[in-house]
Amino acid sequence: DMANPDEIAKQFVNFYYTAFDSDRTKLQNLYRDTSMMTFEDKKFQGTQAIVTHLTTGVQFKKVAHKVSTMDVQPSGTGGILVLINGEIKVDDGPNAMKFTQTFHLLSAAGQAGNFYVQNDIFRLNLS
Amino acid sequence: DMANPDEIAKQFVNFYYTAFDSDRTKLQNLYRDTSMMTFEDKKFQGTQAIVTHLTTGVQFKKVAHKVSTMDVQPSGTGGILVLINGEIKVDDGPNAMKFTQTFHLLSAAGQAGNFYVQNDIFRLNLS
Repeated sequence: DMANPDEIAKQFVNFYYTAFDSDRTKLQNLYRDTSMMTFEDKKFQGTQAIVTHLTTGVQFKKVAHKVSTMDVQPSGTGGILVLINGEIKVDDGPNAMKFTQTFHLLSAAGQAGNFYVQNDIFRLNLS
Repeated sequence: DMANPDEIAKQFVNFYYTAFDSDRTKLQNLYRDTSMMTFEDKKFQGTQAIVTHLTTGVQFKKVAHKVSTMDVQPSGTGGILVLINGEIKVDDGPNAMKFTQTFHLLSAAGQAGNFYVQNDIFRLNLS
């Protein structure tokens, strides 16, 4: 059993969006070579491909996330599943856009409490 | 390795929303006693609690889902992670509401290809 999935998820989500909005290079420690990211219609696997996209592949310079809801469940296979709904503003655009993001966090082998992102799916929720 | 997570997810999603919108009692075979469901602010565990809520706990009679985006990844632990964005109309309300739903599908032990819902998180995306 996991000590406190809600607390682990909360700390992860706080770190993730703070880093994303201030210094995206800090996100690299969250991924592993097995990690998968879907960012809108694009798919990436592995730390380097993921972080390269997040730092230089995206079209925006400035970004700000606001989390509206965070839901957490143990994933049934030792991980933690997180679903975020929120709003994102990019560059100097006046309008926030709704987004949805889900994460599957796994703990590093032999390192209880040291979680990384196995799955990351990000979608704007426009239509 | 899993034969085709995208195809499995597509068949699951088609079955799930067709059953949800026509006869919600058909959803019961998708869950197990370990299954967890978050439906807005409420949490349920196990087939009976989940299906009771979906059939008699919810406030609507008629419901129609429209899927806008479906994203799929292997969950890294033998399962399949699915993220849905879409719109839902309930009863005779004129307006569709945006929703987000994530599923973690696991295959029944010794029954490759026979997937059930370990995790189900549903959120309206209103704000």
